[in-house]
Amino acid sequence: MKDTQDRSPKVRQSLDRVGITNLRTMIQTIWKGKNYYFTPNIEITIDLDKDRKGVHMSRLIEAIAEAVEEETQKPAGSIEEIEKRILDGLQTRHPFHRGEIRMETDMMIQKTTPISGKKTQESHRIEVTVVKDGRRYTKKLKVVVLGNTVCPHSMVTAGKPHIQRAVGELEIETGYANTVELEDMVGCVERSFSSEVYTLLKSEDERHVVRKMFKNPKFVEDVAREILENAKGKFKHAKIRSKAISNESIHRHDVIAEGSV
Amino acid sequence: MKDTQDRSPKVRQSLDRVGITNLRTMIQTIWKGKNYYFTPNIEITIDLDKDRKGVHMSRLIEAIAEAVEEETQKPAGSIEEIEKRILDGLQTRHPFHRGEIRMETDMMIQKTTPISGKKTQESHRIEVTVVKDGRRYTKKLKVVVLGNTVCPHSMVTAGKPHIQRAVGELEIETGYANTVELEDMVGCVERSFSSEVYTLLKSEDERHVVRKMFKNPKFVEDVAREILENAKGKFKHAKIRSKAISNESIHRHDVIAEGSV
Amino acid sequence: MKDTQDRSPKVRQSLDRVGITNLRTMIQTIWKGKNYYFTPNIEITIDLDKDRKGVHMSRLIEAIAEAVEEETQKPAGSIEEIEKRILDGLQTRHPFHRGEIRMETDMMIQKTTPISGKKTQESHRIEVTVVKDGRRYTKKLKVVVLGNTVCPHSMVTAGKPHIQRAVGELEIETGYANTVELEDMVGCVERSFSSEVYTLLKSEDERHVVRKMFKNPKFVEDVAREILENAKGKFKHAKIRSKAISNESIHRHDVIAEGSV
Amino acid sequence: MKDTQDRSPKVRQSLDRVGITNLRTMIQTIWKGKNYYFTPNIEITIDLDKDRKGVHMSRLIEAIAEAVEEETQKPAGSIEEIEKRILDGLQTRHPFHRGEIRMETDMMIQKTTPISGKKTQESHRIEVTVVKDGRRYTKKLKVVVLGNTVCPHSMVTAGKPHIQRAVGELEIETGYANTVELEDMVGCVERSFSSEVYTLLKSEDERHVVRKMFKNPKFVEDVAREILENAKGKFKHAKIRSKAISNESIHRHDVIAEGSV
Repeated sequence: MKDTQDRSPKVRQSLDRVGITNLRTMIQTIWKGKNYYFTPNIEITIDLDKDRKGVHMSRLIEAIAEAVEEETQKPAGSIEEIEKRILDGLQTRHPFHRGEIRMETDMMIQKTTPISGKKTQESHRIEVTVVKDGRRYTKKLKVVVLGNTVCPHSMVTAGKPHIQRAVGELEIETGYANTVELEDMVGCVERSFSSEVYTLLKSEDERHVVRKMFKNPKFVEDVAREILENAKGKFKHAKIRSKAISNESIHRHDVIAEGSV
Repeated sequence: MKDTQDRSPKVRQSLDRVGITNLRTMIQTIWKGKNYYFTPNIEITIDLDKDRKGVHMSRLIEAIAEAVEEETQKPAGSIEEIEKRILDGLQTRHPFHRGEIRMETDMMIQKTTPISGKKTQESHRIEVTVVKDGRRYTKKLKVVVLGNTVCPHSMVTAGKPHIQRAVGELEIETGYANTVELEDMVGCVERSFSSEVYTLLKSEDERHVVRKMFKNPKFVEDVAREILENAKGKFKHAKIRSKAISNESIHRHDVIAEGSV
Repeated sequence: MKDTQDRSPKVRQSLDRVGITNLRTMIQTIWKGKNYYFTPNIEITIDLDKDRKGVHMSRLIEAIAEAVEEETQKPAGSIEEIEKRILDGLQTRHPFHRGEIRMETDMMIQKTTPISGKKTQESHRIEVTVVKDGRRYTKKLKVVVLGNTVCPHSMVTAGKPHIQRAVGELEIETGYANTVELEDMVGCVERSFSSEVYTLLKSEDERHVVRKMFKNPKFVEDVAREILENAKGKFKHAKIRSKAISNESIHRHDVIAEGSV
Repeated sequence: MKDTQDRSPKVRQSLDRVGITNLRTMIQTIWKGKNYYFTPNIEITIDLDKDRKGVHMSRLIEAIAEAVEEETQKPAGSIEEIEKRILDGLQTRHPFHRGEIRMETDMMIQKTTPISGKKTQESHRIEVTVVKDGRRYTKKLKVVVLGNTVCPHSMVTAGKPHIQRAVGELEIETGYANTVELEDMVGCVERSFSSEVYTLLKSEDERHVVRKMFKNPKFVEDVAREILENAKGKFKHAKIRSKAISNESIHRHDVIAEGSV
């Protein structure tokens, strides 16, 4: 007997993205000899032909479970490598023309405080997506990084600036084989703020950060443009998109700027 | 002296979307002779030339404030009408080629319970966007509506289905002048579920809804397809996009289906 | 035949709070002669005896619907008045010893910008709860207000401060009949920041706000204490609780301070 | 020169909870010989005397950083053990009478599907808090677990039930030394639903789960009560609190029940 999923649907209409979202699983990668552990929120979807009623959802889960299992033996070097394995494994279990998998998680980067030289762990939100379209693989990497903006306008008119937390986002879309390191993406964003921020700051570090902020007054427009400029210099053959959001300290609303090259 | 915003930026790069987000204000509309009140979350952005350092953000706020003030005298017939007024007012205060404003809010629809005939207020999430690109105005309307899915697969294999809350989304992109009523959009989504849902249900209504659900087993794929089918019949000259999300009762994750015509 | 809800439960254990949450409906109040419209998120619960299997949930909805309907004829003067009507109406429909209803919504306050004298609408998050315990009614009012903090420590050590958006919360618990106006509560919080903030600020206003900020450097500890001090002076016979959260501009994390009198 | 934090505040008022929130760091535990990795969201607070202006926030961060560093040499057996180490380390750096640290994160539990016997990873939201009050240590553990409810009322009146995803929460407050395993807490909640849920389900497993659901119709009231009953049997000398939330499939709102023993 035919499975319900394999029957004809009432409405004969193809769909672009059918699958699973908000699934959490534990994955690990080995990068430059070091282990990294993530518990990403996962979305995996495939396209669906107009003549098929549904996707066999459990096969998507099995493709993920299998790649995660295999990975404990043969750890991947990156999140996108795990995602490619999942899409390749899925292709043997379920027909699709275009498949897509995205993982959202936090990434920790070890840093040193600027003056006191203490170790500090910095956390960034990341999203890694791999798309398999026919035989072609592309990827989209995104980092969301905290920093700040010091208002250049009030600096001039009031002699003193308003300052606030800002969020910088960088998205890189490129071929799967093109090496793009998340740590470099975070660096492109951090260098675009009035100053980068730290989890740990002793008094002498705080002094340094505050002075740096006052030397680099920036609008969100400046931040969005500098992220693009920094990323253009670093990442070739890629679509680049930036966004800066400022959690205004003199307003209730946020201010945003977005651009792409 | 030139304002800081009007100076040259360090990085000469145009930006697509610069403006304000997460601003809340109270608006009202009169539709079919009845007053509606909303407190939307607003995002308004314009493009920025590569030779200008920044946008004068307070002019965006003033354009909103002025339209809201004017509106208390001359109420608009729809949210998109208020948005068009804001963009038109902004054009006289600040140069831009492409401007965009989006309002997200809840919309209440009065309904009658299916059997007991009692009045019940139903709330839906809506998003209304107007874009002015040169002289051309387009709009994008979106509704997010709750309903349910009754699994047709388990109905066959287990003789009993699993059932769950589902979310249906419909997005219509079309010319500004093309009449698209949010209430009709909600209707297109509600008819696509195994059954529509209600805030108030007496025992006899609940019985009716449950029986209707069991008569209409559907995958999220069916829901996404039927939303498209219903909307195609109703809205012409429009790009139509649907999404269905099922908060699975037998899984921790959600299941999704998306398509467009 | 007995309704399922009225039967004996398998586990004979009383419950404190049984009811409905995330219900949205439209309400209005008339306060000082002016109409206010809200679309609150509502939670209503009652206690449940150890010998009863369940609450008749539709009666909670009917009590809300009835009070909202009645209100269109006889508008209430405050959100807590509507809530009391709902609990009183519920008492005639369903037995309970302790009932509780909470509404969360946004409240708009009209203000004037400090120098340019322009009108501006300011939005605040509010929560209003009424509890009926036996024959005794109490209420809990909460406002969540945005402002800022200017760091006094970096002002001294770096000669320049870091500044950021801050959130101030004030909660008042008191007898139902004790008049407590939300607008006064918002005022108590706003006066505790380095400066209050505005949705609209022209250049001259921004200058004023920034200078005021620099004259009033404050830790979150100072903000939490001053909210308590301001509220103590204003509201008698009440439990008062304050919280201040600073969205640090030099850190990824937030800083908090809480206290009560 | 005295640090700003050590000066007298303008308002002489003690505060209950002053510290840091939304800090993320990577931690690991070894439990029953197996490594577990978490990236919790951390809140750490201490009380503040009425005569001190502020808390030295960087010492809170250092106490966390030090415990995390030490832990790479000497892994802890549980999250609460790491939290106790942090509070103890903090006591040597900063005076306080009452200190509190909470970590929120996801925990993965490996399970086997009920019929096909496949391995599946199940994710649960957890919160672990340790409080040091003078010399006394207490802890609070909370798990948030997904499951489902099958409505017993519609089963009787319509001959068919509505079914939906439900959330069960269990909170245990007890002395620090009292052993309470998170995995056992998850079990207490899972056994209280109409059926437990799984990330992976093959057709035969789905059939089993659906049939189990139909055999165990339950209100949220039943779920909240059974969580209490299961936990009472398992955990002694503890305050126990339960909550059940049902994401109704026939309504827009959610239904809740809470109790404690």
